Amino acid sequence: MSADSSHADDIAMKGGGYYSLATKGAKDVIDMATPLVMRALDGIDLAGHDGPFTMADMGCADGGTSIDMIGQVVERIRAAAPTLPISMVYTDQPNNDYNALFRIVYGMTDIPTALPGYDNVHMFASATSFYREILPPATLDLGFSATAMHWLSAKPGDISDHVQAVGASGRELAAFVEQGRKDWERILLCRAAELAPGGRMVMVNFGKDEQGRYLGNTGGVHMFDTFNEIWRSFVADRVVTEAEYVAATLPQYYKTLEEFTDPLTDPASAVYRAGLRLEHAETRVVACPYAAEFRADQSRGEGDPAAFARAYIPTLRSWTESTFFAALAPGRPIAERREIIDAYYDDYEARVRSDPAGHGMDYVHAYMIVSKT
Amino acid sequence: MSADSSHADDIAMKGGGYYSLATKGAKDVIDMATPLVMRALDGIDLAGHDGPFTMADMGCADGGTSIDMIGQVVERIRAAAPTLPISMVYTDQPNNDYNALFRIVYGMTDIPTALPGYDNVHMFASATSFYREILPPATLDLGFSATAMHWLSAKPGDISDHVQAVGASGRELAAFVEQGRKDWERILLCRAAELAPGGRMVMVNFGKDEQGRYLGNTGGVHMFDTFNEIWRSFVADRVVTEAEYVAATLPQYYKTLEEFTDPLTDPASAVYRAGLRLEHAETRVVACPYAAEFRADQSRGEGDPAAFARAYIPTLRSWTESTFFAALAPGRPIAERREIIDAYYDDYEARVRSDPAGHGMDYVHAYMIVSKT
Repeated sequence: MSADSSHADDIAMKGGGYYSLATKGAKDVIDMATPLVMRALDGIDLAGHDGPFTMADMGCADGGTSIDMIGQVVERIRAAAPTLPISMVYTDQPNNDYNALFRIVYGMTDIPTALPGYDNVHMFASATSFYREILPPATLDLGFSATAMHWLSAKPGDISDHVQAVGASGRELAAFVEQGRKDWERILLCRAAELAPGGRMVMVNFGKDEQGRYLGNTGGVHMFDTFNEIWRSFVADRVVTEAEYVAATLPQYYKTLEEFTDPLTDPASAVYRAGLRLEHAETRVVACPYAAEFRADQSRGEGDPAAFARAYIPTLRSWTESTFFAALAPGRPIAERREIIDAYYDDYEARVRSDPAGHGMDYVHAYMIVSKT
Repeated sequence: MSADSSHADDIAMKGGGYYSLATKGAKDVIDMATPLVMRALDGIDLAGHDGPFTMADMGCADGGTSIDMIGQVVERIRAAAPTLPISMVYTDQPNNDYNALFRIVYGMTDIPTALPGYDNVHMFASATSFYREILPPATLDLGFSATAMHWLSAKPGDISDHVQAVGASGRELAAFVEQGRKDWERILLCRAAELAPGGRMVMVNFGKDEQGRYLGNTGGVHMFDTFNEIWRSFVADRVVTEAEYVAATLPQYYKTLEEFTDPLTDPASAVYRAGLRLEHAETRVVACPYAAEFRADQSRGEGDPAAFARAYIPTLRSWTESTFFAALAPGRPIAERREIIDAYYDDYEARVRSDPAGHGMDYVHAYMIVSKT
């Protein structure tokens, strides 16, 4: 989520080219989900709504990627119920940049937004994790969350020969499967408590699709295997220890569509009994905007592998760096740890620069609508 | 309000002495208002409350000064209605530091708070000004605001021979009186819309008391006259121009108790017709914590005028600097403007250091409870 915190700055730097791509992928995913949000909204009785209509974007980062989607939702609500008061609640973790969020959603940056122009639209922020009940019981009409809920509430263990659960096996994999199951149940039970009867939640989460594809593994160079290979090579080169290698395990789990939907379709599950129902589920792939731009440049005979590598690596670094940094022995001086981490991403960048073909971080998401009985 | 933004840092610097006083005065004022908040709460039917109980602190800054008061309110609500869900909404201007706010109210700093320990207490922030409707209609049960609403929505003109409306006269004073009246009506009409029937709002606002006292004018050295004298001397010394002198006018107005209560007691007023009623009004003086500490030190034969002056001036500077800075001609280089402003507060500090007796910023507030029919 912190990947988006610098959105305003990135936009301010709009020199064209790769700069504006920093959050394009995340925004593409949300824009593509907007028809599903509208479909969810169509299931809600707006004209007969009692009290304010409450919306939430959970894992909103700086609010920039969802701003067009939210604007369209508000417009649709206004068309159906011109005087219905709307509460829009932006939520993320306590370490999110809420100052940047408010600047963006109040229209104080270069990012265009229609939100401040509406009467009776009340904006709020919450720093409560989606592993807890963010809103009071039965008050949420339309929830949304994109690219946030793959982060586990805790790391269920280290993976001895990889950096992400996609490379785990045996008992180590089982621990991630179980943590993913428990965390997903907890997330859904919190939403079941928050949603008003008839309310809907649209979730767009990183996952594994029916062809086994997932983030950065859609036929080209395998992103997580590349992370792992370089980190492993640092052990061979005696830059990091075996213990440091093992400790670098991302606290993430990519569920299959079945794992996502099971608690929503099994009448015996706690989630089903709490009143949550599956309305829609599908997987989709959204192309890496950096790789797409590079290919477009190449097709015009202008592709610059160095520029592509320089632009692409920071987006990978933004959500992986803290895990690799934390894996390094605390006994190492900070400067030494920083040097190792810089060298790590420099190595990845050099690989992309020298052989760019197939590199890229295509998004693979599960798109779901759930409703509350 | 921004005066409190560095609360967490100040507390972190707790070396004793004056450092911990930076927000002590503002917190004293709120702690002293807590019995009034409890009285307002007693007027609300908690056991029979329908839906979540919504509270708001409008002009909360970093939330540190109200944290004990809010904790006591939550405890009282829990005692009367153990399972009643509570929404606590912290509000301020868009340029407030919401990251600092969330760290404090979620208990991530050294400032003790019981809030995160309660189940079913949901915290939110809003960056909507209290000159607009912050919350959806009829959803606010208990509002609170301290030391914030003396800031006018706009400066109604400059004051030709003073820096604050307390030194204005004639037509210039009349413009501030009228702006204060209009702004207060707007503030109250917004609260009338937000408050639920039976809801209460406790407001603690800078004002003029029955003896004509106001902030920094309670019998000792007149704080605003001192500001004005030094600024005027800068014209004589050709540091600033006459135009710059005049432009330095604080967009504030201190109302009398009558001006505060008139719209709430006049059946013909828009505010009264909107359903707001006066439940309680009084004025109180709270001693300047810096001056009090200095006097206590003196009584032990330990008073250090230089230390007092060094500690006291930053709190005056925190809420006046932007006005003086903005009054300087934009044609002056930034560095030159900074130098002038530094010299201005250095001059004030030198005055306090050389003759500390009578300096201090005692708080004079109007304390009110209003209810919604």
